[in-house]
Amino acid sequence: MRVAFGGELEQLGVDLAAMCRLAGDAMEQATRALVGADLALAERVIAGDSELDVLRARCEDRAFSLLASQTSVARDLRLLVSGIQAAEKIERMGDLARHVAEIVRRRHPQPAVPPELCGTFAEMGRLAVHAARAIEHTIANPLQSQLVERERADDRTDELHRGLLTAVSRKDSPYPVQTGVDVALLSRFFERFADQAVAVTRRLDFVVTGTTPR
Amino acid sequence: MRVAFGGELEQLGVDLAAMCRLAGDAMEQATRALVGADLALAERVIAGDSELDVLRARCEDRAFSLLASQTSVARDLRLLVSGIQAAEKIERMGDLARHVAEIVRRRHPQPAVPPELCGTFAEMGRLAVHAARAIEHTIANPLQSQLVERERADDRTDELHRGLLTAVSRKDSPYPVQTGVDVALLSRFFERFADQAVAVTRRLDFVVTGTTPR
Repeated sequence: MRVAFGGELEQLGVDLAAMCRLAGDAMEQATRALVGADLALAERVIAGDSELDVLRARCEDRAFSLLASQTSVARDLRLLVSGIQAAEKIERMGDLARHVAEIVRRRHPQPAVPPELCGTFAEMGRLAVHAARAIEHTIANPLQSQLVERERADDRTDELHRGLLTAVSRKDSPYPVQTGVDVALLSRFFERFADQAVAVTRRLDFVVTGTTPR
Repeated sequence: MRVAFGGELEQLGVDLAAMCRLAGDAMEQATRALVGADLALAERVIAGDSELDVLRARCEDRAFSLLASQTSVARDLRLLVSGIQAAEKIERMGDLARHVAEIVRRRHPQPAVPPELCGTFAEMGRLAVHAARAIEHTIANPLQSQLVERERADDRTDELHRGLLTAVSRKDSPYPVQTGVDVALLSRFFERFADQAVAVTRRLDFVVTGTTPR
């Protein structure tokens, strides 16, 4: 019985890692689509999002059947509940990448962000993709906490987010209001992606340490 | 043993209902603060948010100790995991109310939204508060699904959200870019509050029906 349990648990980890890879790829492509006003790439991100929804449902079903199997010990319970929560948050990361791509599509053939802000969005994108890759790595190596690095990257993302909001909404802003709205929402999507990555990392740490994440 | 389990489970429901009440109150006050540019009320919302964080932690701790008690049957497991997820989402609803209050504080003594858009925000606020109250009711009466009503209210909120984005970001927008940015973010916070309410309702339905929410 424990052998079957172990195999199912391993498969849950494989699916979660696959979700991270997809969410990271989606944000990588969404950022490129944003910076390059690339409609085809944006469409690919939007169409690809359903794959994450399917994987998330599979993770959840697997975790629930393991929970119900009655062979789980306390650490397994934490792991399974964290797995359900992580799957939900990684799916959300994919949604946020899709939201970026949707704004790219809405503004096409115009770029959604002015050229002088593209560098900031490219950096937010790199931080987001790196976060997704780091979580994928943590799932395979759960004993190495990535929390400090994730929080540091999240602080940097918050800083970039505040900078973008100030750049577009200050009194002498050179931007039309539509650009201000697009930049504010896009920036918020990157910022929330980073927040979700921190939340997933806290859940993974919780499994190892047993300390409730706050 | 089952008696103690039942008592602890009941307390989990009491805490979740209390969280809904607090999140609903927070959004009610945040909306009034927004429409009336009321700094004192905004400050109260911001200060009050920590209470939700404490309650969420208590819900989670209780659910985990119940999960580990080994007396739970399949329906209990669903209930406990849904309880952990609902607590997280209701805490998030409180965060969104706080974000509304933070924008009110940042713009004070200026109103954050122009008078002609206040009616739309007031309606979004009413829908949000009603959603929180309805979830509180569903926790006490879990057999009455509120999903159809919640989804309908969410559709209306989405419609109001799109209307606000169009109003501020159209080509001939009469608004300064700062107003556009504030309206877009505020509207997004109300829209996400409604989304979380739908997600909590799906979780509660899941407990009753056993059907995985999608």
